[in-house]
Amino acid sequence: MGVEEDEQWMRRALEEAARGIGRTAPNPAVGCVIVRDGVELGAGWHRRAGMPHAEREAMADVIGRHGGEVLRGATAYVTLEPCSTRGRTPACTEGLIEHGIARVVYAVADPNPAHAGAADGILRDAGIEVRAGVLADEGLRLLRGFDKVQRTGLPWMIWKTAMSLDGRLTRPPGEGMWLTGTSSRAEVQRLRAEVDGIVTSGETVRRDNPRLDLRDPQWLEGREQPWRVVISRQGRALPEDAPLFTDAHADRTRVWKGDDVRGMLRRMVDELGVHTVLLECGGNLAGVCMDDGLIDEVVVFAAPMLCGGPVSALGGEGVADGVKLSEIQFARFDDDVMMRGVVEHASLTASAH
Amino acid sequence: MGVEEDEQWMRRALEEAARGIGRTAPNPAVGCVIVRDGVELGAGWHRRAGMPHAEREAMADVIGRHGGEVLRGATAYVTLEPCSTRGRTPACTEGLIEHGIARVVYAVADPNPAHAGAADGILRDAGIEVRAGVLADEGLRLLRGFDKVQRTGLPWMIWKTAMSLDGRLTRPPGEGMWLTGTSSRAEVQRLRAEVDGIVTSGETVRRDNPRLDLRDPQWLEGREQPWRVVISRQGRALPEDAPLFTDAHADRTRVWKGDDVRGMLRRMVDELGVHTVLLECGGNLAGVCMDDGLIDEVVVFAAPMLCGGPVSALGGEGVADGVKLSEIQFARFDDDVMMRGVVEHASLTASAH
Repeated sequence: MGVEEDEQWMRRALEEAARGIGRTAPNPAVGCVIVRDGVELGAGWHRRAGMPHAEREAMADVIGRHGGEVLRGATAYVTLEPCSTRGRTPACTEGLIEHGIARVVYAVADPNPAHAGAADGILRDAGIEVRAGVLADEGLRLLRGFDKVQRTGLPWMIWKTAMSLDGRLTRPPGEGMWLTGTSSRAEVQRLRAEVDGIVTSGETVRRDNPRLDLRDPQWLEGREQPWRVVISRQGRALPEDAPLFTDAHADRTRVWKGDDVRGMLRRMVDELGVHTVLLECGGNLAGVCMDDGLIDEVVVFAAPMLCGGPVSALGGEGVADGVKLSEIQFARFDDDVMMRGVVEHASLTASAH
Repeated sequence: MGVEEDEQWMRRALEEAARGIGRTAPNPAVGCVIVRDGVELGAGWHRRAGMPHAEREAMADVIGRHGGEVLRGATAYVTLEPCSTRGRTPACTEGLIEHGIARVVYAVADPNPAHAGAADGILRDAGIEVRAGVLADEGLRLLRGFDKVQRTGLPWMIWKTAMSLDGRLTRPPGEGMWLTGTSSRAEVQRLRAEVDGIVTSGETVRRDNPRLDLRDPQWLEGREQPWRVVISRQGRALPEDAPLFTDAHADRTRVWKGDDVRGMLRRMVDELGVHTVLLECGGNLAGVCMDDGLIDEVVVFAAPMLCGGPVSALGGEGVADGVKLSEIQFARFDDDVMMRGVVEHASLTASAH
């Protein structure tokens, strides 16, 4: 089959995978489409850890629609190299072989070096044609958190801030809690739905008393609230009646004391199973994270306002030679502008390239 | 004639007026369209001080195309109330009456309180039908500098800055002079063409050695280089070989020493005849101007980069309750984003409303 056709079907598989963003940790979001004679027979995505993998979902979808026989000789497009080891569910390589799939095309090799290429060999040994690396960059973009955890033990961290045009957090008296408008705040709900956990500071809890939850029902369906981790200095009290500690999902809040932010991020991975976290805080903790190279992606909402003065949205020492962003996106939300980009140090695994 | 038709022709007159932006100081940019039986007979705009006013230009255009007879009974759409006093050119009211114009529609009353409404009376006494205030807000937008000078003796000040996403000016070593890309810098050329003068600081001259000139020929045709005023502290030397002092338009550079920025802006109006100035400098002078309420409009180019650290694009004490911007515009220039807005304190004269 031609390169263009493979890419076309891989895009469909990526669409399926994207439905799992923010829902699958500690597993990655994966999608699969099964095609025969240029026709999509069925598709599936991994819904959450413990549920079937995308390949199993897609094969079940095909069987439900057309019966199992049509799988013989079909091509499976998967966004990640199929698993080859039995975990909570049986290995996908077994399922693909059993059902007579003739060709497997995948985007990204398994980021875990112990598994990378393993399925590739098993499938070829079973007489299945394998093609790897189709739309690998796009595929890896959906696996950033999973990939970073595999490589470093740290989560992919997205720093989100809402600031004035001159990079300040000062809020005019009487303007309520927010610099930015309602459309920007709706976008923040969508952002929170992308992640497994939210990190904030004790300072932010004391000053702003934020809820840091998913309130928009469209993003909550089929998933839990993101974890909320408050990183707080030793000896500073937090308001006991804050929503973080009293609301309906207070069991998803953790307070960790100390200055070792890097260590606490590792702990989020190890104890809470997160891959991707959103950093929502003031300039001090954001500065610590930026200076320590912990931030991978940045989402800035800039409000049409100038504040001046000492309260910067990004504190810390500053990065001597600046940090460039790539994969820039812009969007306008009423009179606010959102800029989003990936920190260039946040290099991706070489295995996909 | 109907409101819609009047607005339609006034939009044409505003288009003509816009051709004069940055070219007419100490006069305002004005446009005129002459219409009869729903047909545009001719149009004109004020090209520069000492040249004919827009109404004279438009009448001459009509006479050149169709002869003077067609002016009898026609309607003149002018963006500003016609002048009624003889200055360097004869009063426009006289010309409109002489040529038999039957109806005059204008957008904005003369911002000079001594003249406002004077033409209105003269024209009505001559039997001409007059309608005022059509698209007054749009008309006033073209006259902001002229209007502010009339009301306050100070120029309309546009602060332009190119900063990192977090509001800093720190430049990575080896990145050359600019945070922002070539497309943003082309837009800065267009901005400089909007103004009569550019203000910078001695600090910026010493550090960046900028040219602060119009280099794009499309913006230079029919106009002089903007004035360049360096505001410098007493006792701090400036590099004598800087382009500002040695290039082909070094005669358009002034160095004024002292701390009285407000006084120097008045002096720019009085001695150089400017209405509109562009502030291009570092955070210190920008902060002084912001804190003192001297900035009317803001153009921020944000580069896809984070710097952190102490060098803010906007210094000063900070504005206690923040300064809101209105009339927000966004544009993307490659990976930079431009945000432009009018400072809300910069209220416009009531005469147009």
